[in-house]
Amino acid sequence: MNISSYRTILKYAQGSIHEQEEPIVIEYPLTIVVNGEEFATLVCTPTHLEDMAIGFLASEGIIRFADELEAISIDERRGFAYVQTSNKLPTAKEFYAKRVIGSCCGKSRQSFYFYNDIQTAKTVRSKATLSIDQCFHFMRLLHQESIDFQQTGGVHNAILCNAEGILVARTDIGRHNTLDKIFGHWIRHPFPLRDTFIAFSGRVSSEVLLKVAKIGVGIILSKSAPTELALKMAEELGITIVGFIRGEQCNVYTHADRILL
Amino acid sequence: MNISSYRTILKYAQGSIHEQEEPIVIEYPLTIVVNGEEFATLVCTPTHLEDMAIGFLASEGIIRFADELEAISIDERRGFAYVQTSNKLPTAKEFYAKRVIGSCCGKSRQSFYFYNDIQTAKTVRSKATLSIDQCFHFMRLLHQESIDFQQTGGVHNAILCNAEGILVARTDIGRHNTLDKIFGHWIRHPFPLRDTFIAFSGRVSSEVLLKVAKIGVGIILSKSAPTELALKMAEELGITIVGFIRGEQCNVYTHADRILL
Repeated sequence: MNISSYRTILKYAQGSIHEQEEPIVIEYPLTIVVNGEEFATLVCTPTHLEDMAIGFLASEGIIRFADELEAISIDERRGFAYVQTSNKLPTAKEFYAKRVIGSCCGKSRQSFYFYNDIQTAKTVRSKATLSIDQCFHFMRLLHQESIDFQQTGGVHNAILCNAEGILVARTDIGRHNTLDKIFGHWIRHPFPLRDTFIAFSGRVSSEVLLKVAKIGVGIILSKSAPTELALKMAEELGITIVGFIRGEQCNVYTHADRILL
Repeated sequence: MNISSYRTILKYAQGSIHEQEEPIVIEYPLTIVVNGEEFATLVCTPTHLEDMAIGFLASEGIIRFADELEAISIDERRGFAYVQTSNKLPTAKEFYAKRVIGSCCGKSRQSFYFYNDIQTAKTVRSKATLSIDQCFHFMRLLHQESIDFQQTGGVHNAILCNAEGILVARTDIGRHNTLDKIFGHWIRHPFPLRDTFIAFSGRVSSEVLLKVAKIGVGIILSKSAPTELALKMAEELGITIVGFIRGEQCNVYTHADRILL
């Protein structure tokens, strides 16, 4: 499916108005049905829908390995993904995770606000390293990727790479969806992640950081700044955040030992 | 509470690295408890927390008028908002709205993907009008507002205005939260909305558009582009979208009769 469609709009410029055809980015509601039960509806860019559905379920802790996934089919016209898993679906009460309050989870992981995340996000043991020049190089690759795929402005991009180059590239209107699409691809076609890293176009929020941890990647590069909560989680989960990568400048926020200075 | 905190980070520039104190934007998990039941946890900038909680509940259709709100108290340290309402809370099944599929809702409102939204988002009958110059003027006001309040980059801003100036201004790390905070303020201190409009720093997604409709405002101005789904909903709900407002240029996407050319 296309990521944008054309519409006639009124454009005002230089003091006058005229009609013009413009590309408008598509937001596509996708409802994920697991073992016959409606599970969630999310809004995404309608590309790589199987990766989207599987990555979302993996990120929520519903699918952990390829062999737990028995079947998936997509009804593109109606916007449904039908997923069959070999494991039992958690009940709504287990899934719509209650807030974790201080003492429940002991001293560790106090930054975590959902119980699911404490169980699903693993501490990353990756031995990957990058030079500062590689950080700049891969952000330029990400930017090139976004020029190639983006006609309408405002979609996010993420690339999973190793030192040789890009392994998986995904685009979406929702920044966290780009990571779910990468996760979904990886669940279906797993490979070792120890030398990999992710370059990402958006802000590193706690949600983004948790997805990186759940995939199991040790370094995230971003054009934007992380939040304070993402930094706390990154420290705890062993993830290196390099942010504000612009031209030949950047900030190393956490676990700087993976960046060769 | 502060919207950012300071951290020592490693900054690389001009070929060398040094330690530096940097402001880092705060992400604050807020759990909303309604009538003793944990309802939802959202992540926000920790300002105007009462507005945040009430606006979120209003947007979800849980509170519709000020007199349905019996009490609210905030536990800032632990991140909880305790809300007491006079109306019964819908059950989880009613709340975690199932996907609306074509034929359920008849010919109209086919763009809507949650049943809740069909019931809560009203068609806006606003008679507000704006000149193109006013569109530019209020986007400049929004920009000024963001310079005043923003030290760390990357927070969103929304202002509810009438022709005289700004009525309510709210900032948040989540773009939709800025609108919930405005909605929450309005629920507590209602005033006629017929001559008002909103200027907004982020993309006009379907979620943003629905929140504008739920507040009941007829015009939204944005620096960014709308999505195709937001345009469909805006056409149906009677909302004027003026987007891509940059310098002295803009696009009028829907219900152009409110914009005086």
